[in-house]
Amino acid sequence: MEYEFDYNLLKEQLDTVIRGGTVEDAKSLIDEFHAVDIDRVLEDMDAPDLQYFLFMLDAERVAELMENAEEELQRQMMRFYSTKELIDIFSFMVNADAADLLGLLGTQRRKDVLNYMKKSDSDILTMILSYDEDSAARIMTTEFLSLKQSLTVKEALLKIKEIAPTTEIIESIFITDDLHRIQGIVDLRDILVAPGFKPLADLIDDSPFYVYADEDQEEASNLIYKYDLKYLPVVNKNLAILGVITSDDIIDVMEEEHNEDMLAVGGVSKDEEYDSHFFHSIKSRLPWLVINLFTAFLASAVVSMFESTISQVVALAAAMPIVTGMGGNAGNQTLSIVLTSLVRGEITLEDDLPLIVKEICLGLFNGAVIGLFAGVVLYLKYHNAYLGLIIFAAMILNMMIAGIVGFLLPLLFDKAKIDPAISSPIFLTTCTDICGFFIFLGLASLLLPKLV
Amino acid sequence: MEYEFDYNLLKEQLDTVIRGGTVEDAKSLIDEFHAVDIDRVLEDMDAPDLQYFLFMLDAERVAELMENAEEELQRQMMRFYSTKELIDIFSFMVNADAADLLGLLGTQRRKDVLNYMKKSDSDILTMILSYDEDSAARIMTTEFLSLKQSLTVKEALLKIKEIAPTTEIIESIFITDDLHRIQGIVDLRDILVAPGFKPLADLIDDSPFYVYADEDQEEASNLIYKYDLKYLPVVNKNLAILGVITSDDIIDVMEEEHNEDMLAVGGVSKDEEYDSHFFHSIKSRLPWLVINLFTAFLASAVVSMFESTISQVVALAAAMPIVTGMGGNAGNQTLSIVLTSLVRGEITLEDDLPLIVKEICLGLFNGAVIGLFAGVVLYLKYHNAYLGLIIFAAMILNMMIAGIVGFLLPLLFDKAKIDPAISSPIFLTTCTDICGFFIFLGLASLLLPKLV
Repeated sequence: MEYEFDYNLLKEQLDTVIRGGTVEDAKSLIDEFHAVDIDRVLEDMDAPDLQYFLFMLDAERVAELMENAEEELQRQMMRFYSTKELIDIFSFMVNADAADLLGLLGTQRRKDVLNYMKKSDSDILTMILSYDEDSAARIMTTEFLSLKQSLTVKEALLKIKEIAPTTEIIESIFITDDLHRIQGIVDLRDILVAPGFKPLADLIDDSPFYVYADEDQEEASNLIYKYDLKYLPVVNKNLAILGVITSDDIIDVMEEEHNEDMLAVGGVSKDEEYDSHFFHSIKSRLPWLVINLFTAFLASAVVSMFESTISQVVALAAAMPIVTGMGGNAGNQTLSIVLTSLVRGEITLEDDLPLIVKEICLGLFNGAVIGLFAGVVLYLKYHNAYLGLIIFAAMILNMMIAGIVGFLLPLLFDKAKIDPAISSPIFLTTCTDICGFFIFLGLASLLLPKLV
Repeated sequence: MEYEFDYNLLKEQLDTVIRGGTVEDAKSLIDEFHAVDIDRVLEDMDAPDLQYFLFMLDAERVAELMENAEEELQRQMMRFYSTKELIDIFSFMVNADAADLLGLLGTQRRKDVLNYMKKSDSDILTMILSYDEDSAARIMTTEFLSLKQSLTVKEALLKIKEIAPTTEIIESIFITDDLHRIQGIVDLRDILVAPGFKPLADLIDDSPFYVYADEDQEEASNLIYKYDLKYLPVVNKNLAILGVITSDDIIDVMEEEHNEDMLAVGGVSKDEEYDSHFFHSIKSRLPWLVINLFTAFLASAVVSMFESTISQVVALAAAMPIVTGMGGNAGNQTLSIVLTSLVRGEITLEDDLPLIVKEICLGLFNGAVIGLFAGVVLYLKYHNAYLGLIIFAAMILNMMIAGIVGFLLPLLFDKAKIDPAISSPIFLTTCTDICGFFIFLGLASLLLPKLV
């Protein structure tokens, strides 16, 4: 019962099987470990070894390995098989997985596979593939039970017994009218205890949620999260039910969104992994760095404007990064609060604009506390009260700006349908840098006679 | 069927009901909207109005509102009810939700409620509450079907018909031995089609996963995510099954982790919300800013060391933030990659240390490209090739350091069981600031005669 997985051990066992094991050895190895783990080892295997190993297995086991693999391994695996063999392998998968794999094939090969398939299967797969890769349709389960609302409980039970073994979802039955339009959901338990003559229409749960097939997966994911839904029907323009998204379907969507946000805030493109190829990483990171360099030059240009001031009071050079750095930190605090609230759909520019007052006050208060510390330290170090006063004032102003920008930027980007996690951080830092330098050095220039 | 929710409209409707509506009006309003949305309006209501409204409702509807509410509203709601009434309300909830609510009550009141309850209920709730708030036990469902492996399919079907209506999970049956120790999972569909004389033991799916009740929810969440599990049994030290975590139970866990990470990286404590009270926000943010101020002074002290150099070449003051800023950006890129991989459990210090070479090379390459740009611009601006050369070299060195620190810090923190998302960013920036200033200004001091 206890499950233990050791990459190196599994690798050795796989090697042993390939270097002279029997078909039975291969199969029992597959059954002992989870496909996710086996795939991790297969990823690092040479193509000939991989092919040899896969050819020892039956279509059902290959299907399990294939549907759990990463895209690259999936592509590689599919190359080993003929059209007919692929169809056989796909027959052991749910439609959503088969559709994803088909989506990876070249146009011609995909057509071939669809043409050789049973028409009922290829119709569903073609329908799924007709929707965008990020659409709700691409994560829905098509193996669900749907019954007409006019059926009685007794009729329904007979149908359920007949269809249930081939469906993925059985605890909920999706109820439609005669035109296949979704009417609601009935719990299997309610059918089990209801009198046989009752029509299903009377048992419908008032779950008023559904998504259109072409809506974004994030939309579906947000609904399921917010309303704690187990099942979310997916419908076409005519409200006919095409499939069902289950709560476990959105786990991957959520995880992906999460990663994208974290990477975006860090200035990395969303498809970079920790073990991505060197040149992939360059491609992912260098463009961001170039943009950052440009903004760094803007900030540097502001400092240049005050070179004569700095040359007279060099202490300013040592103190100015404190103002810009703290502004950036305070702005990031506001930004991260707003970004997480945006992800949860809790905050909008229209409803929550007044909260900007709170952020400005926070900037004022925190800026005053931090500015006071900084001012006292500078005073003690350089024995000049004006220097202390200048950093105190600059800190307050810059932190208030940081609050305003950190609050507004993500909301404005979101409204403009630009990903706020990607775009906000860089603009925010540019802003707090430029303003920080300008305010601090500008005040210093005004009070220059008192500083020298 | 189409569900529309408008905060202001719902607020008006609720007000109308409170200012003279009937009990029936109140109930039909509750039935029309989702509890999550109604709770959002109730949150902003005065206590007397809230109490008046709740008292119009039956225990079942109150239970629905209460279990979907935020903690603060839950506490407030519970204050309106007597011990007996609370028990009545809890009886309409699953045990996990009732346990969470009980956990919010004071010790004495909790004891009272448990004492007045049916013993079978209070036993389960006491068991759940005996585990830590973040433990697997606190998100598990205790309403599941567990059957002994020695039962035949026919016996099992009879039991299932009897128990099913009161359980939350019916599509999977959890199989135990005579000592209630978990043996595996059987799919209800497999029972439906198997011959009646077969023992359940023969139908067990080899799903070798379980978690101990006191393990962290993150552990359970990672297993479910990684292996795409629908159900994860929760066991005690003797492997007796106590409950089951379903994939929808971990959605909240994942969302919370995500938010914590995003907030941590931004330097905000995890319980701050966009609409938190002003002083709550101060408490959440000011301590971080103070720590940041301290590190900013460290960096500033490095600049101070070179004041005489800067006074001779003021251009250095304008150029130095470029080196530190770009180092911070590059380090954040590495950091965000490592953090997301850590969350997914893909990377460890032991297995992946060699990848540090890639990060160093990335720092070298990106540093060279960015340093070249920056060097050329500085050369064109100040007509001094040495200044260009210095920023070129400093950029390369600082970005290599950024790669090393951005890679090692989160892995070391993780190993030391310190949250890497909270601690890494601040140390990283401190490091790239101090090193950036030191390298750039240090090189400038060495080559000072060529710069003046």
